[in-house]
This record gives sequence, C-alpha cells and structure tokens, in this order.
Amino acid sequence: MPSAFNSSSGLERLRRIESSRLFQGAVVSIIILSALAIGAKTYELSPLADRTLSVLDFAITVFFLVEILFRFAACPNKKRFFFDGWNLFDTIVVVGSLIPLNNSDAVLLGRLLRVFRVLRLVSVLPELRFLINSLLKAIPRMGYIALLMFIIFYIYAAVGSMFFAKVDEVLWGDVAISMLTLFRVATFEDWTDVMYATMEIYPMSWLYYVTFIFLTAFVFLNMMIGVILEVMSEEQNAKQAQEAHDERDDINRQLHNVQRQLTELSDQIARTGQR
Amino acid sequence: MPSAFNSSSGLERLRRIESSRLFQGAVVSIIILSALAIGAKTYELSPLADRTLSVLDFAITVFFLVEILFRFAACPNKKRFFFDGWNLFDTIVVVGSLIPLNNSDAVLLGRLLRVFRVLRLVSVLPELRFLINSLLKAIPRMGYIALLMFIIFYIYAAVGSMFFAKVDEVLWGDVAISMLTLFRVATFEDWTDVMYATMEIYPMSWLYYVTFIFLTAFVFLNMMIGVILEVMSEEQNAKQAQEAHDERDDINRQLHNVQRQLTELSDQIARTGQR
Amino acid sequence: MPSAFNSSSGLERLRRIESSRLFQGAVVSIIILSALAIGAKTYELSPLADRTLSVLDFAITVFFLVEILFRFAACPNKKRFFFDGWNLFDTIVVVGSLIPLNNSDAVLLGRLLRVFRVLRLVSVLPELRFLINSLLKAIPRMGYIALLMFIIFYIYAAVGSMFFAKVDEVLWGDVAISMLTLFRVATFEDWTDVMYATMEIYPMSWLYYVTFIFLTAFVFLNMMIGVILEVMSEEQNAKQAQEAHDERDDINRQLHNVQRQLTELSDQIARTGQR
Amino acid sequence: MPSAFNSSSGLERLRRIESSRLFQGAVVSIIILSALAIGAKTYELSPLADRTLSVLDFAITVFFLVEILFRFAACPNKKRFFFDGWNLFDTIVVVGSLIPLNNSDAVLLGRLLRVFRVLRLVSVLPELRFLINSLLKAIPRMGYIALLMFIIFYIYAAVGSMFFAKVDEVLWGDVAISMLTLFRVATFEDWTDVMYATMEIYPMSWLYYVTFIFLTAFVFLNMMIGVILEVMSEEQNAKQAQEAHDERDDINRQLHNVQRQLTELSDQIARTGQR
Repeated sequence: MPSAFNSSSGLERLRRIESSRLFQGAVVSIIILSALAIGAKTYELSPLADRTLSVLDFAITVFFLVEILFRFAACPNKKRFFFDGWNLFDTIVVVGSLIPLNNSDAVLLGRLLRVFRVLRLVSVLPELRFLINSLLKAIPRMGYIALLMFIIFYIYAAVGSMFFAKVDEVLWGDVAISMLTLFRVATFEDWTDVMYATMEIYPMSWLYYVTFIFLTAFVFLNMMIGVILEVMSEEQNAKQAQEAHDERDDINRQLHNVQRQLTELSDQIARTGQR
Repeated sequence: MPSAFNSSSGLERLRRIESSRLFQGAVVSIIILSALAIGAKTYELSPLADRTLSVLDFAITVFFLVEILFRFAACPNKKRFFFDGWNLFDTIVVVGSLIPLNNSDAVLLGRLLRVFRVLRLVSVLPELRFLINSLLKAIPRMGYIALLMFIIFYIYAAVGSMFFAKVDEVLWGDVAISMLTLFRVATFEDWTDVMYATMEIYPMSWLYYVTFIFLTAFVFLNMMIGVILEVMSEEQNAKQAQEAHDERDDINRQLHNVQRQLTELSDQIARTGQR
Repeated sequence: MPSAFNSSSGLERLRRIESSRLFQGAVVSIIILSALAIGAKTYELSPLADRTLSVLDFAITVFFLVEILFRFAACPNKKRFFFDGWNLFDTIVVVGSLIPLNNSDAVLLGRLLRVFRVLRLVSVLPELRFLINSLLKAIPRMGYIALLMFIIFYIYAAVGSMFFAKVDEVLWGDVAISMLTLFRVATFEDWTDVMYATMEIYPMSWLYYVTFIFLTAFVFLNMMIGVILEVMSEEQNAKQAQEAHDERDDINRQLHNVQRQLTELSDQIARTGQR
Repeated sequence: MPSAFNSSSGLERLRRIESSRLFQGAVVSIIILSALAIGAKTYELSPLADRTLSVLDFAITVFFLVEILFRFAACPNKKRFFFDGWNLFDTIVVVGSLIPLNNSDAVLLGRLLRVFRVLRLVSVLPELRFLINSLLKAIPRMGYIALLMFIIFYIYAAVGSMFFAKVDEVLWGDVAISMLTLFRVATFEDWTDVMYATMEIYPMSWLYYVTFIFLTAFVFLNMMIGVILEVMSEEQNAKQAQEAHDERDDINRQLHNVQRQLTELSDQIARTGQR
C-alpha cells in the first residue's frame, strides 16, 4: 500500500512537471531548434557546420525520445496513451527517426521524418491542436460537395481527353492528366493558352472551358456559403438563441405563477363572500 | 379483387427491393464501374483489354436497362414516372446508349452519352440530388445580376472591338471574340499582355481594363453578398425567428388568459359585494 | 374646367399606355435589337447588310426619340422629368445620336453613343434599376477604405519608382506607371516576373512585393467583411428585430393593461369593503 | 493666479484653433501637396521645376514642423503627447526629414522618409485613424492561423528544397527561396510551369502541389470564415441581442410588479373579509 501510494504520488509529480510552463517551453524551443536545423540543412554548408548539425540532430532525437518516454510515464492510463492520435503521431515521428539509415534512399526518408517533427509544434501547443481539430471537423461537412466537384471534374476530363487528346497529348493524354489540366484551368493558370490550342481544331471549344469555369466557381461559391451558414447556425446563434429562449422561459414561468395566484385569489374571494 | 390485392402486394415488394440498401449499393457500384470503364478507355489499351471493356460496357448497359425497367415497374403511378426530371434523364442516358452506332461521328456521340452515365450517381444518391436541387434553386436569384453582368460585358466588348480590332484581330475581331477576351481579363489571365498591346496605340486604354475589372469585381462581390444574405434570411433565421415568435405567441396567449381571469375576478367581487 | 379635365384625362390615358406591358415589351425589344445591330457592326459585312443596318439604326433612333417624347408627354410634372437621373441619361443618349456626324473621329463618337443605348435596358427594366441603385448606395460605404487603398498604392508606387526605375523603365518609370504595375501585382498577374527582375539588383525586394500583397489582400478582405456586415445589419436583421421588438411591445402593452386592471380591482375591493 | 488663468485660456485658444475646420483643412491640403511633390519627383523634370520642388519641399517641411510644435503646445499634458502612437509617428517623420543629407545613400533615405509623410493623412483624418485601429485589432485574431500557415509553408518548403533543389536551383535552392516559390504557387502565379519542371524528374510531384494548394486554400477559407464570425458576434449581434435582452428584462420587471400587486390584493381581500 505505501508503494502504491508512492507510485501515485510519483505519477502526480511527473504530471506536475509535464504540465509546467518550463517543460512546455523547453519542448517548444527544441522543436523550433529542430525546424531550424532542418532548414539549415537545405543550404550549402562547411564540413564543420555539417558535423555540428549531425550532432545537434542526434541530441534532438534523444531529447524527443526522453520527452515521449516521460509523457508516457506521466500518463495515468498507459493503455489509453496511444488511443490519442497526437501521442501516436509523436511516437511514430520520434521512433521513426531513431532507425539507422545507410543507403541513400533511406537517408531521404529519414530526412522526411525529421521534417514532420515540425508538426509536433501542433501536437504540443493546445491552441494549434484546437485549430486543427476544428478544421478536421469541417471536412465531413464538405464531403458531398467535394464528391460533386469530383464528378464534374471527371466528366469534363473524360470528355476533354476524348476530344483534345489528339490536340495536345501532354495536357489531355488520359483521364488523370486531363483532371490535372482542369485543376489548372480552375485556378485560372494560363487557361487561355490551353483553350486557344484546342480552339484551332474545335472552334467552339471555348464553351467547354467557360461552362467548366462557371460550374466549378458556382459550386465552389455555394460550398463556401453552405459552410459559412452551417458554422454560423451551429456555433454562434445557438448560444444567443438559447439565452433568449431561457429568458422567455423565465417569463413563461412567472406568468404561470400569476395565473396560479389569480386562481387562489378567486377562491379566496369566493370563501370571503360565503362567510 | 384478389388480383388487385396481389398486384398491389407485388408492387409493394418491388418497392421494398428498390429502396433496399443492397439494391442501392449495387446500382452505385455499377455506376462507379461504368465511370472507371470510361476513364480506362482514354488510355492506350491492349486489344484484349479493349475487348474486355466492350463486353463490360454491354453488360453495364443491360444492367442499367433492367434497373430502369425495374424502377418503372416499382413506380405506383406510371404516368408520373417521366414527370420526375431525374427519371427522364436516367431513361434518356440509358436508352441513348442502346442505339447501335457505326460511323465514327456517331461513335463519339455514343461515348459522350456513356460519359453522362456518371451523372446518374447524382440521380441515385439522394444527398447529391438534394444538393443539385438546392443549387438549381439558387440560379433564379442570380438572374438579374447575371443580366447586368452580361450588359457590362456586351458594352465593353462592343467598345473593345470598335477600337482594338485593328490592334489585334485575334483578340478583338468581333463582339463575340471580344467577350471571350474580356472573360479572360475578368479571370486575370495574362490580362496585362492584352493591355500592353493596346496601350502601344491607345496609351490611355489602361482605363478601359481597370474600370472593367473594378466593375465586374464590384458587381460580382455584391452578387455574392446578395446571395449569401438571401440564403441566410430564407433558410436559417426563418427557423429560429419562428421559434422565438412561437414562444412570444405563447406568452401573449397566457397574458390574454390573465386578463380574462382578472375580468372574471372583478365580476366575482362585484357579485360578492352585491350580496 | 372641362379643358383641364380633358387634359388630365389625356395624361391619364398616356400614362396607362406608358405603363402597359405591350409598351414596355416593345421598348425592351427595340433596345435588344439596337444592341444586336451594334454587335453586328463589329463583323465584316456585305454592302447590303451594311446599308440595312444604317436604315435600322435610323429607325431605332426615331423610335427612341418618339418614346422619350411620349414619356415626357405622359409625365405629370414636366419640370421634374429631368430631375430623374435615368430620364436625363435616356435623353442625352437619344438626342446625342441624332447629331449628324461626318468626319471619322466624330463617327467613332456617334458609334460610342449608340453602344450606351444598351444601358437603356437598365433604365427601362425596374428590376435592373433597383439593382443599380442599390449598388450605387454601396459606394460611399467603401469610400474611406478606397482612400486607404489608394494611399497604400501611392506610397508603394512612389517607393517602387524611386528604387526600380533604373531596373525597368517601362514598368516603374514614374508614379502613374508604377501604380498600374502594382495593380497588376495585386491581381497576381505575372507578378513573379516583375519581382525576379528587381531581385537581380535588390535581392531583398521580394519583401516589397510580399508585404504589398499581404497589405492589399488584408485591407480588401476587411473591406469585404465590413460591407457584408453593414448590409446585413441594415437590411436583413432590421426587419426581423423590428418584428420581435413589435411583439415584445405588444406584450408590454398587455402587461400595462393587467396592472391597470389590478389597480382597478384593488379600488373595487376597497369600495366593496367600505360598503 | 491671473498668469495661470491666462496660460489655461491660451491653451484653450490653441486647442480651439487646432480642432477648427480651417486648420484641419490646411494640414490635409499640405499633406496632399507633399504627396504630389513626391509623385512629381519620379518624372523627368526641367532644372527649374526641380529647383521649385526643392523649395516647395523645404516649405512643406517647415510647415509640418510648425504644425507639430503647435499641436505639442496645444496638448494639455505634454508628457502624454508622445504616448500616442500617431503623434510619435508624425514627429519622427517630420524631424527625420529635417536632417541634412549629402551622400547619395542618405538622399535615398531622406526621400523614403518624405514618402511616409503621405501616411500622415491617416494620422490626421479621424476616419482613417479609426479604420487603421480596427484593422490592427483584427491582427491578433489571425495569430494562430498565421502560425499554422507558416508551419505548412515551412514543411512544404523543406520537403521541396530536399527533392527539387537539383531540378531548379533558382526556385528550390534553399528553404527561404522555396518558401517564396510556394508563396507564388499559393497565388496561382505560373504554378504549372514550376510543377511541369519537377514532374519531369518526379512524375508524382503534382501531388505535392495539389495538396499544398488545397491545404492553403482550405486553411485560408476557414480563417476568413472564422474572422467574419468573430467580428459579427462581437460588433453587430451584441448590440441587437442587448436590446432584446433589455426589453425582456423590462417585461420581467413588470411581471414582478403584477405579482407584488396580486399579493397585496390578496392581503387586502383578507383584511376586507376579516372586517
């Protein structure tokens, strides 16, 4: 029993350290240092600087490993630790960069994993975590509109590659390439060059582009409006309407009281009259 | 009478099958398969794959035909079946791809009709159908703004082709081509190239482009705001305001009760006093 | 007195004709015909077609003149006729195209005036007139933001022409040309070409472009939000809030009645008790 | 005591002059004149015009100095004068342009300071000052979203310079250059040229660009919505909801009165009955 008590008290102490400003600050600083190290690696470096960066990278990896182990130790329910997506992400990124890499392809993979360490900033700062969570929540709302957009792209891409493949194999070769070309048209990126090329063979092909631009812009605009409206009706007005509703409820309750009082009064008068 | 009963029961059974998850899932899967087949056709294929696709296409056409006939059989009111735009669309697309096509032009038409089969996804999935219906409802709202936009484009195109036709016949040859060029300017697509060319002869022609961009952007912005406001006032607030209105109505009704009770009370007292 | 009566009755008849669907429809048709004639003139035409268009143009001018005279005759208060901006605009456009033009410059002016006839569609269709009026109302709202935007453009243009004039005389020659170049940058039109050219001499000049884009986008975004909010608070909520306010007013009035009734009741009881 | 009275009365008179329409108008006119002088300097000028501008510049500098001294004299609390950011900005700009400059680098600095004089328009016109203050207030709201955007840019830039540096040293040389290239991609400026170049070596690199565009557009859209919602909930509805709340409060107060009156009535009847 004293051992259990000690353990619980130790866990409590670990958690206090974990949630302290100093610990949080140290982790954020090391993540930013690791981001700068990644950035520095993209420049031409002297051999000395290169070696320094390697040592720094090793130190950062060890720090992150210790930090994850510490956070795991501080977690009261070990089983649930990996159920949290952010913890899982942290562990994979940290453990992944421990694997020794020799051949050149694997080195690139190792460097990629180190880049994703910057994302740990999101998992460590609660404000960013909240932001990402609310962004993720917005995705399903856009689900069916995205599907509709995809159908529009697919149909136009199929038609495009059917007619324009002989005009420009590079832009309209097959359905996949055509969809990329249409994405380019949707961003207005040199879309007239694409159009003028096909208009030389199909003079009416401007209809294809203009309708496509109208459709995507129109659907996108409606998507935007829809999302704005949904978010608004959910978050903002709900609170306000609830407040107004509560106040009206209060008025209603008081009116019931008034009516009850009146009924009692009527009874009282009746009794007074009878006397 | 037993026969009518049987028929009604058969219709009921057909409708139960039609609205079952299995049937819906099968139709959606076949539509996606048909979309993939259309996409595959845009790639260079071996003769074997080509023949397989032809067989698949035939099978899909037959499946769609059977499905339409089934849906028609399951429809309680045969006359109204074709009044629904989605049913009509499905029938045209399916029947259209049944017509045997030999010469090369007709083959292209047949392939086009097969592309439109992908749109059947919209007619089959109720969520997409709802989305499209609500998009269609938004069109009349934009009617007069679209007309205004068209007038702006037409006037600028007429002026543009009057002055700039001698600068660049390809871009400003006549009113129609000028409108296409202005659409390009409105999407900001290499509009400065167009402007610099005309500025060599008319140095003040930048005014033409800058005012056009301001006008279209301004009108478009207002259109967007207008649509957002209209949708909001219609869909969202209506519900909430109705709720608040109902609650205030309730309060009003209770107040009337209170006043009636008070009048009765006054009568009662008067009677009590007279006794 | 009978003469005054007759005159009034004649005026009444004229106004009935003016506001009839047939008259309105005829005017709209002629305006559209005149627009088509303007469009047709931008194409290469056979001498016959050209002569036909000239005759048509003359007929349209006469029709518009008659229509304006008719509308003037139907107006009950002749002095106020020209106070209405739309009437003034119509008269200028119609009378302007009556002036005979011989030398080539004036011919171009005459054709320009004919183009503006298309705008008469706005003055004739009440829905478009309403739209334009509400757009014009939105302009003062944007006044100070537009001034702020102009100041930002002016400062950046002055700095730009100070530093970059020696890099590219065509783009940064003086303040006016620099503002046009900055407008181009604000529409994202090949802005990197402009930037890469100046970065060769001033490697840090990307700061100039990136801050400019951020500033204009940020101010524009806020302008948009501001306008949306102002329009919303004005038009939409006002109505709804008024309704809610009226209903609450009604509740208040009833409560006052209840309180008055109660006071009367108290008096009545006092009198009953005294008896 | 009379001296103190005089001083206070003098200060009062200075402040009356400072806030007079004439004084304000003169300052605004001189600022606009100074802006025009800066603009004129960017053109090729005759020696005479150049000398005139130099004299004008000197006169403007003296006027601004006198104006600042006057405003300082009119300020009741001299210590607080420089606590106001706008006063500080005015003083720095005016005093800065007094320093005599000889060598060519310093001349450029002097001209830059003169450009910033145009910004004095913001500090003088209260409407613009209000606008800028409200824009500055909007910045912290966007803080964490901006950080998230920066993280996305940094990660993509690091990955981009890792893979694409060998494709195009100019666009993807290091992390800083890559971020500029990505900013270009985010503005859709010739982004396909960048993509097609890297797709020749990494055929799947379109995924890099398309995901980047989706991520930035998605985050930006959400940022915009977030800001709109926050501003709306703050400024607009607050006022309206408060009004409705006040009216409901009023109703509540009256209901309490009714209930109090009823209680009193009941007591009165009881007393009447006892008599």
